[in-house]
Parts: sequence; structure tokens; C-alpha cells
Amino acid sequence: MRSVAIIGIGQTLIDEQWDRSLRQIAAQAILATLKDAGRENAEGLFVGNMMSGTINNQNNLGTLVADWAGLKDTGAVKVEAACASGAAAFRSGLMAVASAELESALVVGVEKMTDMSAHDVTASLATAADADYESDMGVSFVGLNALIMRRYMHEYGWKHADFAPFAINAHANALHNPFARLHHEITRDDFEKATMIASPINLLDASPIGDGAAAVYIVPAESVRGKPRILVAGSASATDTIAIHDRSDPLFLTAASKTVQEAYRQAGIGPNDIDLFELHDAFTIMSALSLEAGGFTERGQGPRLGLEGQIVPKGRVPIATRGGLKARGHPVGATGVYQLVEVVQQLRGEAGETQVPDACIGMAQNIGGSGASIITHILKRE
Amino acid sequence: MRSVAIIGIGQTLIDEQWDRSLRQIAAQAILATLKDAGRENAEGLFVGNMMSGTINNQNNLGTLVADWAGLKDTGAVKVEAACASGAAAFRSGLMAVASAELESALVVGVEKMTDMSAHDVTASLATAADADYESDMGVSFVGLNALIMRRYMHEYGWKHADFAPFAINAHANALHNPFARLHHEITRDDFEKATMIASPINLLDASPIGDGAAAVYIVPAESVRGKPRILVAGSASATDTIAIHDRSDPLFLTAASKTVQEAYRQAGIGPNDIDLFELHDAFTIMSALSLEAGGFTERGQGPRLGLEGQIVPKGRVPIATRGGLKARGHPVGATGVYQLVEVVQQLRGEAGETQVPDACIGMAQNIGGSGASIITHILKRE
Repeated sequence: MRSVAIIGIGQTLIDEQWDRSLRQIAAQAILATLKDAGRENAEGLFVGNMMSGTINNQNNLGTLVADWAGLKDTGAVKVEAACASGAAAFRSGLMAVASAELESALVVGVEKMTDMSAHDVTASLATAADADYESDMGVSFVGLNALIMRRYMHEYGWKHADFAPFAINAHANALHNPFARLHHEITRDDFEKATMIASPINLLDASPIGDGAAAVYIVPAESVRGKPRILVAGSASATDTIAIHDRSDPLFLTAASKTVQEAYRQAGIGPNDIDLFELHDAFTIMSALSLEAGGFTERGQGPRLGLEGQIVPKGRVPIATRGGLKARGHPVGATGVYQLVEVVQQLRGEAGETQVPDACIGMAQNIGGSGASIITHILKRE
Repeated sequence: MRSVAIIGIGQTLIDEQWDRSLRQIAAQAILATLKDAGRENAEGLFVGNMMSGTINNQNNLGTLVADWAGLKDTGAVKVEAACASGAAAFRSGLMAVASAELESALVVGVEKMTDMSAHDVTASLATAADADYESDMGVSFVGLNALIMRRYMHEYGWKHADFAPFAINAHANALHNPFARLHHEITRDDFEKATMIASPINLLDASPIGDGAAAVYIVPAESVRGKPRILVAGSASATDTIAIHDRSDPLFLTAASKTVQEAYRQAGIGPNDIDLFELHDAFTIMSALSLEAGGFTERGQGPRLGLEGQIVPKGRVPIATRGGLKARGHPVGATGVYQLVEVVQQLRGEAGETQVPDACIGMAQNIGGSGASIITHILKRE
């Protein structure tokens, strides 16, 4: 398998973009990425998206986006793995270039979620859960995560306020990211007093939806002249049971652990070598679980990393360095590509006020469903 | 890029399977395929499906199917390219194995379409067209194909009855395929008198929907001991404009021609070397256009191949040898994998009464939208 490099990135503001269609948002990110890469076309287009069928009345999304972005002859598909669709699309593009089937690939994650009622969006998001055994019982995605968080607090003795640092760090970092959905800092007091959504998850535990697209351009590493280059050093995908009730231990992200271990193995590194970790903080509880599955702390000790100040850009394990899902925003099928774009920004030294000092190796982890579909990538500057 | 072989196939009956859920149908095809391949698991699962979001209220389909089929640790994604989703999933699996990222992959195409009203299915199928510039104007998929067929008849002087051999051949072949949706022969008289749907397309020009799944198991060719082996000799994907009105020539499948030429190039062959061609006969007009784009006849002469008896199993260019979309049935996201399974049956010499004599090289072409997303594969026995 040949090595693959990322030579271009692009993203749009995450917002309620009522004046722009799905294809326009995707094309905006693609055109920015082509410009950044110095290219005009790509042999393949991989679109990460979850809900174009349920929300936008549109399938055949690969061709739709290729057509609108002016990539007429490009082979194109949509790749879906619920909220991990972005990373799934990236991994598909990666394998296409690694196999030498393609010499270049564009990966774009896009989601347009704000043109319908909150009720309908919630129902659409629930399609990531088990339709027959979870969603049909009326449990929403917030509800599923609330069950996990409640159990976690019970088992390990944490209070709700102990999760505050995850949200505070995310908001503080998003303040300096012009593409982020939320641009306001929050305090511990704000966090504790926020509106309850599904106990114990309140408004500031949860990430906001939005309309947005992010893209990357990949080529064989051997074709990149000059250094430094941003290489894909690890890529792994694994699944767990789709329904939480089928898991023997709902408080450990087994699939996350498997993908992280495999990605570490491919890259020849361990958790101490990771300079930043863009994890899937759809809810604060997921930050804790991802840090534990990633080997950054013991089981049940995720919140401690936040309380000890280790997760900030200059800490030991920087997370959500550009705002994370919590404050950059979570346009679900696009999120995994935003994460990769942000890791590239860090490795290039283009992260401004939230730059992780001397960032050389970054990890991104995208989660679909409640820990059901997990994809982890490690990027490296060399 | 390393060579890839198909070592297992499986499929379900295409029917109205109201007593079985989407995941059950997919798992049935997967279990049959694992048995045929002599395997118990696979490193990756690629699910071809178009409408699980719009019809089955279910995204995160890769993990759902992996979970139900007992492939718990397998990385899994859904790949969507409208009605070409099956071939798109196969191509993704192919690149994963060819890149050496995976040592084995299961590809399953699945669609469950009959649990809702015909009106809602028609609306869901229309999501393969351009939502903003085609579907929103009220044009259905039959309507789009009717526009193409009407223009084709006008330009080249064919009568509607001249398309009868495509439907007659498909029904005659499906009679001997136990997995086919329709098991009755039709006559030229039946064809001419069938109920009009969208002039000039009548009921016997159109393929039936259905519930069904088909799967294949792929591995590196070098790992297969003994011969003959079924190898993937060519794979190509291309797109055209998603909307027909944007094409300078709506009567030529430009993307089909590009993929066929690329697949021929990879396989080192030409149209005369193809022993059978499983084409995308969603409507009889598409058979004509695919034969022309494939280089089997001149432009505007597709129907002649049918009238001259060249498309039957013992003819020069056998098509729809197991019934095609027309009579085997068209569970949209599954169709591309059914085509590949059927080519493998032919190359193995397991096609019974519709066996193409000494079939050694077969081509399958899957089309998403009205010629918008086209994927072509060539399989070879050696």
C-alpha cells in the first residue's frame, strides 16, 4: 500500500445557511480545497453525508456535488456511516489512492440540517440508532447519550459539573476559529445553570447542529515535492453493536479502542506521541469515553484530564482545538472532515491563537451512532 | 495495485418480503455468501443501498447489517450512488482489498422497497434525480426515461414494438432463475398491449421494484489456491451531469462509454471479447443506450441487436442472462451486486438453462440516475 498525503484543505462557516443549498455548500468547500491544493480537478470524489435522503430529499449525492462543483468526469459516491460519514468518506478516498486505482481524490463532508423543524431533525438524527429496537421506542440521540452519562456518573462517582472543562475548552477555542458555529466563551457557572435537555445532559453538554462542508485533497505521497508533507500515518475502522443495550459494557468504547490501537500500530506510535486529538465530543460524556479508549487515561478517569487542565491547546492532550463538535459545530456527515482539516491546520502551524506548540502528530476520531461505527485517523507532518 | 478475486456469492429471492426486515434480508445474502466462500468473517463490509434513509428510517446501515450478520468487529460503511449503489459498494470494497488495507471484504447490496405506498416509493426513487431542478418539477424517474425514449424513437425512427426483444429475452431468462422477481414469459403481443405508464414507456418496458439482497466476498487473488479463479479485470466509475437537461446529447451515455473504455483498457480487451453483458435495463431504452455506449453497435442501432436475436444467451452479445432488472427485478441499491453475482454464476458455469456457452469474460454495468452515475466492472475466469 502506498503512502498518501493531504495537499489541500477547505471549509465553510458552520451556520444556518438558509440562502444556500446542499450542493452550493459542498461546492464552496471543494473550490476552496482545489485552490489550496493548486489543482483543478480530481479523479474521484467521496462525499461524506448522513441525511441528504431524509432531510434534503436528495440521493445520488456524489454526482450531484461533482456536477455542481464542475468535476464532471469524476467518479463519485456518497459514503454513509451516520455521524462518522466524514471519516468514512475520507477512508474510502484514502484506499482508492493507496490502491493506485486513483491518482487524486477529493473528500468532502457536507450536511444541511437547518431547513426543517427541530423535531424532524431529531427524528432524522435518530436514524443513526437502531430503527427497530431504539428509535421506534421513542429514544432520541440525546436520550441515548444521557443514559450512558447517567450510568457513568453512577459508576465512577463524578458530578455533572466535573464535565464542565470539556465544554469550556471547546468554546474558548472556537472563539478563534472563524469557521465555528459558536463564538462565545462560557463559564463553569454557565455550564451548571444551562437548560436541561435529557438529564443529566444539558444544553452545554451537547453540540449544536448546523449547515456546513469541509474538504481535503489527497494524492500519493510520492508525488509531493518538497517538505514538510502531511501524511496519513494510520487509518482504522471498526463497529460495535448498533444498539447500546446489546453491549456487555456500555461505558467503554470498544470499537474506538480497537481503531486507536490499530492506528497506533500502523503509525508505530503510542498515546504519548499524539500532539493533539480531535475527538467526537457530540456530548461531554463522549469526550471522557474517547480519552479513555484512546489510552490517554484510565477507565472512568476521563473528566480528570479536563479538571487538571490537560486538554487545552498547551496541555498534555489538547482536544477540540478549533472548537470541537461542541462549539465549532456538528453538521453530522461533515464533522469527520472538519476534524481532519483542523488537524492539518495544526500540523501546518496555521491554527493561530489555539496552535498546539510544535504539533507534529495529530489524531482524529469520528463516531457514528452511540459508539457503533468508529473511524480513527492519525496524520503526521514530516 | 494487487489483483482481486471473488470467492463467494449469495443472493435472496427478490419479492415483497413483508415478513422480513432490511437487516434480515441483508444478513441472509451475507450468510449464504460466507458459506459459499468458506469463511466466517470479513475485515470490511461495504453495503450498497440507496433508500434506507427515506424508506426504512435507518441510516448507519453498515453497522446495522454487520451487527445483525454477526460481523461485530468488521469496519462497515454504506455506499450510495443512487441505483448504482451496488456497484459503487463493490468498487469501494475492491479498492480496500487492492490497496492491502484489507485482506477480505464482503460487499452486500440491499434494498427493501415494498413496505410503503407506490406513490411514496416513486417519490423516494426520484431522489436519484436532481431534487431542485427535476424532482421538484414533478418529473418521476419513469417520466425522465420516457423523455429520453421518445426523443430516441424520433431521432432514429424506431417504433415502440422494436424494443420488445429486450423485455422478452429478460422474462425468458428469469424463468430459469429461482431468485428472480418475475417468473412468466411474455410475447411480443403482450409487450405491445401492456398498460401505458409514461408514454412511450409501458408496463413491460419497465423493471419491477422489490425487496432483496445480493453479496460477494472478495480477497487478494494471490491468496486463492487452485484454478479457475474469478478475477476483477476492470473497474471504472464516471459521472455525467445529474440533470438530463444539462447534457449536450441526452441520447448518448457519455459516462457509460468512458467507464467501458477504461475497463476494456484495464482488462486489455475490447467489446468482441465480452461473453456476456449484464447491463442496467431499468427501462428498455437503457438497454439500447448501454449496448451503444459499450461499443457493441453503432449509435441509434441498439434495438437492432434485439431484433436480430443477438442478445439471447446463445447470441453474440448476451444480456440480462438471469432476467436482468426487467424480470430478475430491481431492488435498486442491490441491483449492482446481483449483476456481479450473475456474472460469477456464468463464469463458473452455474447458470443452468441460460448458461452462456464457455463464458470466460463478463461485464456488469450499473447506472445511477438517468445516466448520471455509471460504474462498469469486467470479471474474468482464469
